[in-house]
Amino acid sequence: MALKDEVLEVATKARSASFEVANLSSGVKNGALELMAVGLLENADTLKSENAKDLARAREKGLTDAMINRLTLSDKVIASMAAGLREVAALPDPVGTVTDVKVRPNGLRVGRMSIPLGVIGIIYESRPNVTADAAGLCLKSGNAVVLRGGSESIDSNRAIAKVLATACKKGGVPEGAIQVITTTDRDAVLEMLKLEEQIDIIIPRGGEGLIRFVVENSKIPVIKHYKGVCHVYVDGDADMEKAVNIAYNAKVQRPGVCNSMETLLVHSAIAEKFLPLIAAEYAGAGVEVRGCARTCAIVAEAKKAVDSDWAEEFLDLIIAVKVVDGLDGAKAHIERYGSLHTESIVTENYTNAERFIREVNSSSVMVNASTRFADGFEYGLGAEIGISTTKLHAYGPMGLNELTTKKFVVYGDGQIRE
Amino acid sequence: MALKDEVLEVATKARSASFEVANLSSGVKNGALELMAVGLLENADTLKSENAKDLARAREKGLTDAMINRLTLSDKVIASMAAGLREVAALPDPVGTVTDVKVRPNGLRVGRMSIPLGVIGIIYESRPNVTADAAGLCLKSGNAVVLRGGSESIDSNRAIAKVLATACKKGGVPEGAIQVITTTDRDAVLEMLKLEEQIDIIIPRGGEGLIRFVVENSKIPVIKHYKGVCHVYVDGDADMEKAVNIAYNAKVQRPGVCNSMETLLVHSAIAEKFLPLIAAEYAGAGVEVRGCARTCAIVAEAKKAVDSDWAEEFLDLIIAVKVVDGLDGAKAHIERYGSLHTESIVTENYTNAERFIREVNSSSVMVNASTRFADGFEYGLGAEIGISTTKLHAYGPMGLNELTTKKFVVYGDGQIRE
Repeated sequence: MALKDEVLEVATKARSASFEVANLSSGVKNGALELMAVGLLENADTLKSENAKDLARAREKGLTDAMINRLTLSDKVIASMAAGLREVAALPDPVGTVTDVKVRPNGLRVGRMSIPLGVIGIIYESRPNVTADAAGLCLKSGNAVVLRGGSESIDSNRAIAKVLATACKKGGVPEGAIQVITTTDRDAVLEMLKLEEQIDIIIPRGGEGLIRFVVENSKIPVIKHYKGVCHVYVDGDADMEKAVNIAYNAKVQRPGVCNSMETLLVHSAIAEKFLPLIAAEYAGAGVEVRGCARTCAIVAEAKKAVDSDWAEEFLDLIIAVKVVDGLDGAKAHIERYGSLHTESIVTENYTNAERFIREVNSSSVMVNASTRFADGFEYGLGAEIGISTTKLHAYGPMGLNELTTKKFVVYGDGQIRE
Repeated sequence: MALKDEVLEVATKARSASFEVANLSSGVKNGALELMAVGLLENADTLKSENAKDLARAREKGLTDAMINRLTLSDKVIASMAAGLREVAALPDPVGTVTDVKVRPNGLRVGRMSIPLGVIGIIYESRPNVTADAAGLCLKSGNAVVLRGGSESIDSNRAIAKVLATACKKGGVPEGAIQVITTTDRDAVLEMLKLEEQIDIIIPRGGEGLIRFVVENSKIPVIKHYKGVCHVYVDGDADMEKAVNIAYNAKVQRPGVCNSMETLLVHSAIAEKFLPLIAAEYAGAGVEVRGCARTCAIVAEAKKAVDSDWAEEFLDLIIAVKVVDGLDGAKAHIERYGSLHTESIVTENYTNAERFIREVNSSSVMVNASTRFADGFEYGLGAEIGISTTKLHAYGPMGLNELTTKKFVVYGDGQIRE
């Protein structure tokens, strides 16, 4: 079969299954999630031996240790996939809740009912565990899903998909609800991105290159974030201990993730007091400081930052530091260089805290907290399918609710319009 | 200036204004809306004389009476534009509300704050009153707006824009918050649709042709509905009086709008009883009936429907009628031919009513009510900027809240991630 037809067949099957998946009871969905978890654990040996093929190819190609690490399905990774599915089963069903019911003057009762989006397309790289994680979240939210992993993890993905399909069948989930596109041809992604009649939304997970490729080629709405250039602004009225702790934690605790801080903004009034304190901590952790002129005048070991540093997602032990003239200076910098991901102010000043919260329009804005808290689990969503820095539909970490939408439901007793 | 640069300049100015508009107080916004209303009323003579130029060109071109009617700015239309702006001023401010605040185990308080989308692009045809209506809704929701009306109403739109700009200036709204693209070159729309960095969302208002053109050429997310092929399903347990009233009202009361019914589905068990009743009513109102074979066997004057009739938005006194085998037959027909706009079931049966509400995934689903109620005013949204039949972001009639999104706000007291 031609590639185009193959992808279309998968997506058409998903669309058709989506009508049934939308109306599955919570009991059926949770039962299937449990069977999926058991299936993964029981087939751990098969999964590992299929994964070994991917790993062998990766080593041949000379992939980095970090990439090979992401590719690996160890017993621990498999156990955490199973645990993740069970956690999703334990979450409340996001489908069918009715809110905002109001009685109109003519007696109509108008409310809004949460319903699944329909068919979700997930395009991802490297990590085969995304296959199970994303499938579980889509099923629980009543959506059908078409998964397209990278060619580097194709054998693992096929094996996981097989386990999930068996569990779904046993659990009464319609065929086609969870499907993996198993051709390694890259054009399959392009074909998938054309199917706006079959797929409602695309969620890419991976590096900025993958995401830009998807956005530029998709006819289907894409929920995405390109990168996280997160800021901490240490205000003139900051508590020094909180400021040092937060600026250290946000950079050092896990520098390779999108909610780590990339640029530190410091009020000029306290720069001479604060910068030496945090610079000493950074030096101890091996963090390279790239500072503006005013920073370099205070921190001797700082390198001079170049303009591109302010927009850079280092994902590493490197920090750009700028001295700004108060809250307005910090806001202007964030508006210019920010990525709408997460920004935090450290301050004891009530007005500045409230102004920062209201006036900075990133998807997460914080007072006196590390940017590292910006994720679905830490926010209590119970799960996370991704983060959106596009304001449409969802903004910030997305949980199960963000995989649904709301239709209007209208209860009448014969009303007609005059 | 080249067209491209002209459009870019307008959009860049809008983006820059959007940061300020987002933080205007309700008082300033409402004051400006009142000044806009007063400005329109005080300049009614100028508006009418500018509108006369559009009307003269329209007559030269031989536009239909209906189109000329839509183009006309009469005293009544101007008064209703002013009244609309005052109604928007009276609505609650949708910006800055905080909901869903939860305290996390580590003491962080996490909530969601409504914020404007940023810059909204409105692309519309014919009706110059959209200029004032859309501008008012965007301002109230804290968004900047770029308006692009059709060339047929260019003189009217320019005149309205001038009045609005003067009112905004007087009312303390930043320059650039409300702008009209006044070049009549159609390529201006294409240039506008490329500016994903400057414009957050495009809302097209007009015929299916305009909307398809916008969707196909836009790099910016588009909120739209192509057409409304709305269904009424008369169930086997329907109350005959309600069924006749609703089926008559949904078709006849205003056939030219998107929430009027286009296809009537009738349970086979009551077809012989119900169809003659409604056919007599339709005959009295001059409605042409196009029926399936079973309908034609009961209703002598019905024409035979062709397959394309089931997907047709007639916007006229024409109705497609199909006899179906119960609720499942009705659902299957709606899934195949529906437009995700509005569907209504007429029934006294509790289970069927609830199944229809839950299982039909259109943006509005109703029990015992005319589809004509599917609009923002009737639903109590207080205003309507458009209707979405795309599940992302908003689904169904969109009011002020749908012109906002929610960011996460996090209040801490020094929390760091372990």
